[in-house]
Amino acid sequence: MADKKRIVILGAGFGGAYTAMYLEKHLKKHKDVFEIYLVNRENYFVFQPMLAEVVGGSLDLLDTINPLRKLLPKTHLYVREVDAIDLERKQIILSPKYSHTPTEVSYDHLVLALGNVTDFRGTAGLHEHALPFKNLADSIVIRNQVIDVLESAACEEDPALKQKLLTFVVGGGGFSGTEVVAEVNDLVHKLSKQYPSIHHEDIRVVLVHSKERLMERELSENLSRYAEKLLKKRGVEIRFGAHLSSATPEEAILDTGERICAKTIISTVPSSPNPLIETLPLPLEKGKIVTDAGMQVKEHPEIWAIGDCAAIPNLEGKGICPPTAQFAIREAKVLAHNIAASLLGRKKKEFRFKALGMMGALGHHSAVAELFGKFKFSGICAWILWRMIYWMKLPGFDRKLKVALSWILDTMIPIEAVQIKTTPSQGIAQLHFETGEIIFHQDDVGDYLYIIVSGEVEVYVTKEGKDRVIAKLGKGEYFGEMALLNQRSRLATVRCLTPVDVLALRKSDFGILISNFQELRKDFEETEKTRRREIG
Amino acid sequence: MADKKRIVILGAGFGGAYTAMYLEKHLKKHKDVFEIYLVNRENYFVFQPMLAEVVGGSLDLLDTINPLRKLLPKTHLYVREVDAIDLERKQIILSPKYSHTPTEVSYDHLVLALGNVTDFRGTAGLHEHALPFKNLADSIVIRNQVIDVLESAACEEDPALKQKLLTFVVGGGGFSGTEVVAEVNDLVHKLSKQYPSIHHEDIRVVLVHSKERLMERELSENLSRYAEKLLKKRGVEIRFGAHLSSATPEEAILDTGERICAKTIISTVPSSPNPLIETLPLPLEKGKIVTDAGMQVKEHPEIWAIGDCAAIPNLEGKGICPPTAQFAIREAKVLAHNIAASLLGRKKKEFRFKALGMMGALGHHSAVAELFGKFKFSGICAWILWRMIYWMKLPGFDRKLKVALSWILDTMIPIEAVQIKTTPSQGIAQLHFETGEIIFHQDDVGDYLYIIVSGEVEVYVTKEGKDRVIAKLGKGEYFGEMALLNQRSRLATVRCLTPVDVLALRKSDFGILISNFQELRKDFEETEKTRRREIG
Repeated sequence: MADKKRIVILGAGFGGAYTAMYLEKHLKKHKDVFEIYLVNRENYFVFQPMLAEVVGGSLDLLDTINPLRKLLPKTHLYVREVDAIDLERKQIILSPKYSHTPTEVSYDHLVLALGNVTDFRGTAGLHEHALPFKNLADSIVIRNQVIDVLESAACEEDPALKQKLLTFVVGGGGFSGTEVVAEVNDLVHKLSKQYPSIHHEDIRVVLVHSKERLMERELSENLSRYAEKLLKKRGVEIRFGAHLSSATPEEAILDTGERICAKTIISTVPSSPNPLIETLPLPLEKGKIVTDAGMQVKEHPEIWAIGDCAAIPNLEGKGICPPTAQFAIREAKVLAHNIAASLLGRKKKEFRFKALGMMGALGHHSAVAELFGKFKFSGICAWILWRMIYWMKLPGFDRKLKVALSWILDTMIPIEAVQIKTTPSQGIAQLHFETGEIIFHQDDVGDYLYIIVSGEVEVYVTKEGKDRVIAKLGKGEYFGEMALLNQRSRLATVRCLTPVDVLALRKSDFGILISNFQELRKDFEETEKTRRREIG
Repeated sequence: MADKKRIVILGAGFGGAYTAMYLEKHLKKHKDVFEIYLVNRENYFVFQPMLAEVVGGSLDLLDTINPLRKLLPKTHLYVREVDAIDLERKQIILSPKYSHTPTEVSYDHLVLALGNVTDFRGTAGLHEHALPFKNLADSIVIRNQVIDVLESAACEEDPALKQKLLTFVVGGGGFSGTEVVAEVNDLVHKLSKQYPSIHHEDIRVVLVHSKERLMERELSENLSRYAEKLLKKRGVEIRFGAHLSSATPEEAILDTGERICAKTIISTVPSSPNPLIETLPLPLEKGKIVTDAGMQVKEHPEIWAIGDCAAIPNLEGKGICPPTAQFAIREAKVLAHNIAASLLGRKKKEFRFKALGMMGALGHHSAVAELFGKFKFSGICAWILWRMIYWMKLPGFDRKLKVALSWILDTMIPIEAVQIKTTPSQGIAQLHFETGEIIFHQDDVGDYLYIIVSGEVEVYVTKEGKDRVIAKLGKGEYFGEMALLNQRSRLATVRCLTPVDVLALRKSDFGILISNFQELRKDFEETEKTRRREIG
C-alpha cells in the first residue's frame, strides 16, 4: 500500500517519546499502514526525575539524556521549533533554520505532547532574575551559577556583597522545588569546603512555599513533616505561606513583605501550558486540551493529546490525570493502541490507571516515598528505593550503565566545582528594580547603557557630601550613556522612585551599535551635551 | 615575618598552572616568605592535548579539565577577567562581577602566563562565521554544530542546502588543525549512520593548509605524508598552498579563488598574543614578551613571562622556545625556582631543554609520533603511545581514572549524537557577505533587521518574473525592518553589490527595542512609509 498514514507527534517528553516507542511496536506488524514523525526542540529525551542530581553533581551532565534517534530508530525525527499548527490544512509549520523558509509537515493523526513551559509572566522581575528549573539546560545553568557565586564570594571583601552571593532562594515547595533546594543546599555546603574564605555559617539557603507543608499535593502529612525536619536540620530555612512577589538583581521579595538579599533565585513554581496550544481552536480547561478517556479531542478525531498539556479524565480518581511521568508513560501505551486501532478499524481503549505512589529525593542519601497509599518510607531506605526504581525505568542499557558508573564514581571521587562556560550571554538584558534601589553609583564602572521600559528614576550627583538631583527620567528615556561614550566611571547615581523595568545594553554592543548607526549616534551626542551642562 | 611577598600569576594554562604547582612545592619550606595568587578566567585547568577527543566524543565533556582549587590547594584563586595591569603601582585590575566596582590586587612579583588568543582580525567574515578551536567551550561548540547540521540535513529536502549542511571546512594543517579535521571527519561519518537520509558520499570534509605538507614545522616529511595519506583514505580532501581568505554564512572562500559552499567552517590558524600584553610598556618580539634565559623581563626584575606569550631564548635550539605544552611545563619548573631564588637571595637558573619529540592524534586509533629526532611511529602503535604518554601527564588521580573509564566506555557504547543546548545566543550578530550573495529573498520569513556596517546592497522586487531595483543602500543604512514591523515575509530581495558587513538584530530583540525606545520607533516608521510607497 503506497498510502501510508502519517502520525505526527509534537514533543518528546515522557508522553511524546513513549507514544512513539509504543507506536514503533505496533509498526512491526503494520509497517505499510502508517509512519511516525516526531518533532522536538532537542535531539534527546531527558529523564526528568534525575535532573536535580545533575545540579547536585552526582550525575554527569549527559547521564540523564537519551538520544532520540537511538531510542526511536523507526521514527522520523525533526529537531526543530514548531512555529504554528494549521488544523484546517492538517499541517505543522516548523521554524526555519539555516535558511529563511519554513518547513511544512502534513499529518493524518496529530499527537500533542507539548508539556508545559516555565512562565514567569505576572511576577515582576522573575523572568529577569530568577532561574527556572525545568530542563537539562536549566540544571546546568543552576549548577554553573552556584559555582560562580562561590568563586566570587571567595575573593569578595565587601561583607554585604559576600552575604548576597552566599544566599540562595528557591521558590516552590512541590516535588521539584524540594528536590532542587536539597541538592543546591548539599552542593553549596560540600563545595564550600574547597574555599578557605567561605564558612558554613555564611551560607543561607531559603525555600519559599505558598502552602503550609511541603509536597502537600502528593504526600501525606507525616512524610511532609519528615522532609521539612530533614531540610531544616541541614540548614535550609523554610518560609511557609509565602510567595515570591518580585525579584531584582539584588533581592528576592516575598508577599509577606520580607526581603531576602540574594544573587541566586531559583523558581520552580510557574509552569503553564505551551503557548502554541493557546492559539488552537480546541476545547481547553485551564489551558490544557480537553480529551475523552481515550485521549481523543472532541470533534477532531485526528487529534490526540497526552501528558501535561492534556486534560484527560481520571477514571480511577478525581478530576483529570495528574501531570506526572508515571501517568504519561501509561497514557502513552493506551494512546499508541488507540491510534493504531483507529487506523486499523479496531476498538479503542479507555485510559484507566491508579497511581502506584510518589517518591521525592532529598539529597545526601535520603528521600521520601509513599507506595500504594499504604507503605511509607523515609531516609536511606526511601533513597535506595528511589534510585532502584528510577534506574530500572531509565530507557536503554547504555544509560543504565552510565548512570550506575556515575553513582559509583560519585562515592569515590570528591565533588568538583567545575563550571562549563560557553559563550558569554550577549545583547540586551532586561532588569527589574524595586523602589529605592540604586541602579548604579557615582564612580562605578560604566558597563551598561539603560533604557527605561516602565517606572521612574532620579539621577543625582554627590559633591562634598551633598546630593543634588539633576534629572528625573521615565518610560522611553535612557541613561548611563555618558560613562560609555567618554570614560570609565559614572558621573552620577541613579535611584528608582518606583518599581522600574529597564533594558540594559552591554558596553561592547552599545559600541557596535553607536559606531555604525548614524542616527543613533547623533541622538546620543546631543543628549550627552545637554546632560553634561546640567552636571556642571 | 608578617611581610609576605605576593606572587601574582596571570593565566592558568600549562605555563601558569604548573608555575603555581612548582611554587607550592617551594612554599612548603618557605611559607612565611611568600604567597601565591592566580588569576584565571575559568576555575579549571584544561588539558589541551585531549581537547580534540572531546569534539570526537571519545572523552566526556569534563574529562579534560581539572578544578584549579583542587590542583593548587595553597594558591589564592581569582576567577575573573583581567581588565588592566598597572606596572607603576604594581597592581592588577580585575573586571567587576556582581558589582560595578573593579578589584585591585597588588603584587611583588608578576608572572605573565596569558597564552595566546584566537584572532580572526584581518580575514573578512572569519570572526563572524568560523568557529575557533582553542578551549573547552570551543570543542563543545564544534561538537554541537556538527550534530546540529546533521539534524538539519536529515530532514532537508533542498539538495543544495543539504550539501552545504554536510560540508565541513577546516582551516590550518598544523597539529590542532590536523587533529580536529580527523576527529570531525570521524564524528560525522560515525554519526551519519544514525541518519537514514544521510549517505557517506553526501559528506564532504575539506582541510585547507597554507604549506605544502601537514604539520611541517613539527614532523619530518614521511610522517607528514603518512598523515596525509591516512586522512585522504578516510575521505578528507586536502588543499595545500591555500588560505581561507573570507567566510560568509554560505561559503568558505580560498585565496586560490575556490569557493566551498559550507555551513560549518572551523579555523585553527590565527592565534595571536593576548591583547592585554600589547598595552604594556615591555619589550616585545612579534607580540611576545622578551625575557632572558631565566624568564625575567629586562629592566623589570619583578616581572616574568612564560609559555606562549613569552619570547624565551632557546638555548638548546634556534630562536625562541616553541609554544608547546612540553616546553611550558619545563619552563614552569625553572621559573618557580628562579622566583623563589630571587626572594631568598639564591642563584637563578637558565632554562635549557631539548624537545623529546612530537605526537599528533589522527582519530580512529591512529597517530603519528617522532621521538628524540630518531624514532618514528605511525598508526596504532603511535596511537597507543599517544594515549599512554598523555594519560601519564594528566594531573591528578581522579582525572586519570575518569579518562580511563571514558576510554573503556567508548569502546563499549556506540557514539551518541547528543547536543548540549544552553541558552540560545541572543542580541546582535555580525555577518559578512561577499559580492553577489543574497542576504534574503522576497517571501522569506522576516527574522532579522540588518544595519550595514560597510559595503553596498541593492534591494529589488520581483513581480511577474521581472526584477525592479527599488533602492541601493550603504554604510549606516538599515533594511529588513518592514517584515518585522508588519508581517511575516519579506517584500523584496537584498543582494550585495560589494563585500558587505552587516549587524543583524534578532526579531525579538528588535521588538523589545522598538517598543521601548520612542526615538527609534519614529525613525523606523517614517522610513517604512517612504519605502512602502516605493514598492508600490
